[in-house]
Amino acid sequence: MTTPTSVAGRTPDRRTAILEAAAVEFDRQGFGAASISGIAKAAEVSQGAIHFHFRTKQAIALAVIDEQNARTFEAVTYDGPSPLAGLVEASRTIAGLLLDDPVVRAGIRLSLENRVFSGATSSFYDQWIASVVDVFRLAVAAGEVGPTVTPEALGATVVPWFTGVQLVSDVRAARVDLLPAVGTMWRVLAHACVVPAQRDRLLAVVDRAFA
Amino acid sequence: MTTPTSVAGRTPDRRTAILEAAAVEFDRQGFGAASISGIAKAAEVSQGAIHFHFRTKQAIALAVIDEQNARTFEAVTYDGPSPLAGLVEASRTIAGLLLDDPVVRAGIRLSLENRVFSGATSSFYDQWIASVVDVFRLAVAAGEVGPTVTPEALGATVVPWFTGVQLVSDVRAARVDLLPAVGTMWRVLAHACVVPAQRDRLLAVVDRAFA
Repeated sequence: MTTPTSVAGRTPDRRTAILEAAAVEFDRQGFGAASISGIAKAAEVSQGAIHFHFRTKQAIALAVIDEQNARTFEAVTYDGPSPLAGLVEASRTIAGLLLDDPVVRAGIRLSLENRVFSGATSSFYDQWIASVVDVFRLAVAAGEVGPTVTPEALGATVVPWFTGVQLVSDVRAARVDLLPAVGTMWRVLAHACVVPAQRDRLLAVVDRAFA
Repeated sequence: MTTPTSVAGRTPDRRTAILEAAAVEFDRQGFGAASISGIAKAAEVSQGAIHFHFRTKQAIALAVIDEQNARTFEAVTYDGPSPLAGLVEASRTIAGLLLDDPVVRAGIRLSLENRVFSGATSSFYDQWIASVVDVFRLAVAAGEVGPTVTPEALGATVVPWFTGVQLVSDVRAARVDLLPAVGTMWRVLAHACVVPAQRDRLLAVVDRAFA
């Protein structure tokens, strides 16, 4: 995602403004119904300005998915004393973005509704699973996670689990129950894999994050 | 879902043939790209025959979603000696339908990709969650599930979990890893909520179902 630098100064801001206006349109209408002219109007730029940054509507959508991934990935940390608490906090941050950030909302909607984007989406799932597996490995090393389920299996199921939780919460309730639903996911997971001596501490982290 | 009976004999078969041909088209191309004329050609009927049964392409899609729900719901049983083993077997049957039955594949794709259908989809999720909660209540009564997580919370998270598992398996691997991925879900769940005395038996059921 390089930004043209030939038009110095305003260019990065304008590109971001287009991206965010497009995200609002995609989140509201879906990919099919959104139009370049509607995006231009919402971003208060000319259609020519949009074509300077993006060749097609599909290119805008891919940039929204990229940006969604960058914003959500930023939430993941690896350096706290409790790797699992860090992952719980990261999921809380991402849930907040799903409630409030049009780019993140649109990125998820676009990835789910259109197979045109499944190439990009697929590699992002791979990255997410690899990162979450790493966190579970650190959690095993830190003595938080026991031997009931491998870090590989935990990472491979937590990513789709969160994906499904936010999706079903969106379809059933426009995400009003997203925070308690993610909290339930972590409570089930804590009972499945956290060692008994650490479980109450982790459950308290979950309660605090998703209260 | 009443079937017109005025044209006796052939009508139900022809309606099913249209539905199944439409499902193949929807599963392959998505709702937007599928056309009534393409469906008519695939079903080897006239477009007039399609309009006799369905007013619009959207009505066909809703009928596919209804039929998907009916076929998957049929897998759930409540009367075995082990309610949780029954649910594991039901999820195995549904995973098989997701691999092999175009109506089930198309129904899931349509529900996920188009918010036009989220009204229907939402009420199906409600029904699924209510049914799975019932199974977990029976499993508590049967002494399989302990007090770590309530049946309500288990039902509310297992349905989105399965939804996410099949979705991510579809995006990443065209569902070739669907069976082991669903098996992993059940293994994590068994460690989270099944009482220790029943856990090995349940894990063996999972291993057998998803080997």
